[in-house]
Amino acid sequence: MGGVFRHVLTDADRGHWVESGCIDEETLSLGTGLSWRVKKKTLQGGLQAGIDLVEVDNGVFSFTIVPTRGMGIWKGVYRDIPLGWDSPVRDLVHPAHVEANDRGGLGWLKGFNEWIVRCGMESNGAPTNDVVIDNNGNEATVFLPLHGKVANIPARHVEIRVDLAPPHRITVVGVVDEAMMFGPALRLTSHISTEPGGNSLTISDRVTNLNNRPAEMQMLYHCNYGPPLLEAGSTLVAPVRSVSPRDATAQKGVATYGRFGAPEPGFVEQVYFYELAAKRGSGQTVVLLKNAKGDLGSSLHCSLNQLPCFTLWKNTAATEDGYVTGLEPATNYPNPKPFERKQGRVVRLDAGETRRMDLTVAVHDGRKKVRNVERSIKQIQKNAKARVSKTPIRRISGADQ
Amino acid sequence: MGGVFRHVLTDADRGHWVESGCIDEETLSLGTGLSWRVKKKTLQGGLQAGIDLVEVDNGVFSFTIVPTRGMGIWKGVYRDIPLGWDSPVRDLVHPAHVEANDRGGLGWLKGFNEWIVRCGMESNGAPTNDVVIDNNGNEATVFLPLHGKVANIPARHVEIRVDLAPPHRITVVGVVDEAMMFGPALRLTSHISTEPGGNSLTISDRVTNLNNRPAEMQMLYHCNYGPPLLEAGSTLVAPVRSVSPRDATAQKGVATYGRFGAPEPGFVEQVYFYELAAKRGSGQTVVLLKNAKGDLGSSLHCSLNQLPCFTLWKNTAATEDGYVTGLEPATNYPNPKPFERKQGRVVRLDAGETRRMDLTVAVHDGRKKVRNVERSIKQIQKNAKARVSKTPIRRISGADQ
Amino acid sequence: MGGVFRHVLTDADRGHWVESGCIDEETLSLGTGLSWRVKKKTLQGGLQAGIDLVEVDNGVFSFTIVPTRGMGIWKGVYRDIPLGWDSPVRDLVHPAHVEANDRGGLGWLKGFNEWIVRCGMESNGAPTNDVVIDNNGNEATVFLPLHGKVANIPARHVEIRVDLAPPHRITVVGVVDEAMMFGPALRLTSHISTEPGGNSLTISDRVTNLNNRPAEMQMLYHCNYGPPLLEAGSTLVAPVRSVSPRDATAQKGVATYGRFGAPEPGFVEQVYFYELAAKRGSGQTVVLLKNAKGDLGSSLHCSLNQLPCFTLWKNTAATEDGYVTGLEPATNYPNPKPFERKQGRVVRLDAGETRRMDLTVAVHDGRKKVRNVERSIKQIQKNAKARVSKTPIRRISGADQ
Repeated sequence: MGGVFRHVLTDADRGHWVESGCIDEETLSLGTGLSWRVKKKTLQGGLQAGIDLVEVDNGVFSFTIVPTRGMGIWKGVYRDIPLGWDSPVRDLVHPAHVEANDRGGLGWLKGFNEWIVRCGMESNGAPTNDVVIDNNGNEATVFLPLHGKVANIPARHVEIRVDLAPPHRITVVGVVDEAMMFGPALRLTSHISTEPGGNSLTISDRVTNLNNRPAEMQMLYHCNYGPPLLEAGSTLVAPVRSVSPRDATAQKGVATYGRFGAPEPGFVEQVYFYELAAKRGSGQTVVLLKNAKGDLGSSLHCSLNQLPCFTLWKNTAATEDGYVTGLEPATNYPNPKPFERKQGRVVRLDAGETRRMDLTVAVHDGRKKVRNVERSIKQIQKNAKARVSKTPIRRISGADQ
Repeated sequence: MGGVFRHVLTDADRGHWVESGCIDEETLSLGTGLSWRVKKKTLQGGLQAGIDLVEVDNGVFSFTIVPTRGMGIWKGVYRDIPLGWDSPVRDLVHPAHVEANDRGGLGWLKGFNEWIVRCGMESNGAPTNDVVIDNNGNEATVFLPLHGKVANIPARHVEIRVDLAPPHRITVVGVVDEAMMFGPALRLTSHISTEPGGNSLTISDRVTNLNNRPAEMQMLYHCNYGPPLLEAGSTLVAPVRSVSPRDATAQKGVATYGRFGAPEPGFVEQVYFYELAAKRGSGQTVVLLKNAKGDLGSSLHCSLNQLPCFTLWKNTAATEDGYVTGLEPATNYPNPKPFERKQGRVVRLDAGETRRMDLTVAVHDGRKKVRNVERSIKQIQKNAKARVSKTPIRRISGADQ
Repeated sequence: MGGVFRHVLTDADRGHWVESGCIDEETLSLGTGLSWRVKKKTLQGGLQAGIDLVEVDNGVFSFTIVPTRGMGIWKGVYRDIPLGWDSPVRDLVHPAHVEANDRGGLGWLKGFNEWIVRCGMESNGAPTNDVVIDNNGNEATVFLPLHGKVANIPARHVEIRVDLAPPHRITVVGVVDEAMMFGPALRLTSHISTEPGGNSLTISDRVTNLNNRPAEMQMLYHCNYGPPLLEAGSTLVAPVRSVSPRDATAQKGVATYGRFGAPEPGFVEQVYFYELAAKRGSGQTVVLLKNAKGDLGSSLHCSLNQLPCFTLWKNTAATEDGYVTGLEPATNYPNPKPFERKQGRVVRLDAGETRRMDLTVAVHDGRKKVRNVERSIKQIQKNAKARVSKTPIRRISGADQ
């Protein structure tokens, strides 16, 4: 009753690591009637050599966690519906091959192909110079490359947990340290879980400032969708307080900001910054990406108390160039960090303090299920008047700073 | 008849990788009477840890392909003649240890010790700033480090092919992606092959623009020779339309541009840019490096339609510092990319377009065989008047731009 | 008699590497009555994946050598006394995860957690621009990141040696090449040894200029201590000719320069530059870090002929931020290299020349043993008058250059 099966895959403290293995109904009988499975693999060959994977299959929904890339989630499949997208970067890329500062700080893009990837933790957003206090107590200018480091740091601890009592939640725990002497020492403890037979996964992250001095933190969940969820006529349904374009390019598309076009060679990304509405009291909100017919959707559920900012990245470029949209709940907008700091959107963690962030991602197949989610979004929308700004909003958009 | 034996060593798509193995006359009887062999190894320890090697031995000529370093060719041996050179960099260097942007963009030199190494594919040549179009559709300045990235990207697919019908050509196929989101996505598909008992290897490369938008491409085959092919009195024999020094240093040595000296401590590299002549109609050309006695040579065969530029790098420095010459057929001269672009020497690939480049490298032992190659070069020379410029030619040399 | 047992763990030349293994009294009976042991391990998982370790235990004193990180020494234990410190960087970090030029050249700090780590070999000290001669014979500006490269280069040769004759010295030999074409080619050959039952280890390093042209070299042994050796009331005892603060911050603490405080959140590092006195004739000197009670100490023994400069790094910050002091015998002070060069403190190695450096680190438990060391330091102090400068000394401190 209430027991938990635990299987440690990586434990840097004890020098423990499991190359491959599998836990499933045969090795751990739960009697769910579902062929659930958690499988550990190590990739070899090419850019992916040395990458640890943990494939979770709850019986109807499977997804692949990548401990070596900061506990990102590479791809998912719900029943026969693929989740994720096709990047020009075909393979998972081991962090050893990512030089973050390459190409004007865009090195991160050499490994960018995940369904869900965290951007953080010291910083995220556009490459920028920033001023920090150095080991001598002086101000020093440092360069912050695109979207920070966390996606390219291997987890120091990884374990599988399976609740022995119903609903038998399956959890993969990962601990990722973004640490250096005289710099940030932020620890991500991530619980990624799902229930056998369920249509969702939940990411429960805690970020702890390991230092005995205040630290800054930024976190953005870059949730990326290509077909079939993204197609001509797909829409993003969200409870809106305000939407505004990031820049002049987005401004041009503002009339159809929540609607997606077909793959279009030469399309330049359009980015919209949202202030979302939430359920009264709880801070909980939902956004939904649904296909043209409205019979397939994926929703993101989080609390605005934890993740107050939401960014929509529309990149409906040609299929070969990465036809994709990013739904990005975050602590901030992905502007250069100094701008976000000025706007009060950089999290400050006191010595030893922990910030929690939870995100549930669900898949909905069938018109009825999709409508249910839309209905709850409409319910939330009643709490707020939606305002669509035709031009960038000064306190939100850093593009024209 | 006409069948092909195939053995896949690496396939990133299927998560397949072979740590070690060997195919030879015993495992695949061809009845050639030669003890040919293709051997897969994985190196461990030091800077070379994790490097995949494929050693091809056709019975008289062996060479080592390095899939982990972009399908470069480390060293060769023809009968008892070593091919390649001795770099101050002793070991093969895993790309994880090469920070391209280090030392003013000269990080590439930390892994430079191959007999044949490709420079490309987005760029090659001297480190430089360049202007590209970024994800926002704006011009952005990016830094291009020396000789590009391809030599430090592991192949995502590697396979051995052996023709079952005579002449039983042995081929190693490698696929290397230089790809990033919002940047170049160039795929190299390389076939490196040799015939049992033959004195040559052929590199057949195709570079494909995976994006659905135009891309630029540069490729240079840095073919490097030390002793015994390089020695005091060695010469480069080539069918010349023009030769010109790159800069003031090369200018000083222009009188003996095609002739090599003994190792000389403190020698500063001299670089000569060639416009070669070709066989009438075909575009085919040949250059030959021969030793002082003229009884040993190595020739390069390619088409000026594919590789119109040829650079001779004379670095007859002290043995310990890298006594070496580079014969460099290429799409361009290794000047900073913006200069090459201005001169129309950067390849433009349309969406999905493929560019093919073939290069055959042969070894000739014995005065007679060497003379045969010289004779064919002289034959080509009849088509063109050789012009030696004593000073850099403005449209060719970017050194004084 | 006089024989040596040798066991090669890594030999890049021969493609040899041992994943794990152990040599001890059972496998090689020396009859010392001590349970000595040398154990080879390879770490997996997290940032430490692929790191080779050699754990040496002489029966009473054990320490862990890290061939993959330039033959640094991670941690030690003498009887039950831990040696080293607790960095915010928890795990050993594979060089593949260290981008030296990150964060304004402070990338080195992402892997900094060793007890003893070398800083060098082309350069050490603060990040700086420097002017070198490039491959074209021209002056070129290059950026030198913090503390150089050697700590992030894997050894190309590693072997264990055990003297078969008493006192049965146990030695681990490592060879680390810091080499590139057209740049430094410095080879470190390190012998790290201890005697069964002994309270010390000796690092005997030779650095050879492999090039046939002069080279520069800098080496600093960053020996780092946290508790129990470092605590409120610990002191550094040293035979002093002069001590001076590095900068204004150190200036404030100059009255207690050799005395340590308790962990103090927000403490900014204080650095003192020493000119040490030596034994008459020999150049040998000793410094001692002792705890508050004076019943525990660790001493460093070296020759000022080899390592003329000594730096004390006081970083008595909060425990979580890295409560640590660094004792740093070196060829130079860790100022920007151009300043050190101007002061004549950069070693120049002729073509093929070797520089030897020896450092013995000992542990002393019990008041009596600690006093013995103090006594020998006082003996040396008699040769020199100690001068404490209240302000930075111009020829020593580069902070205000």
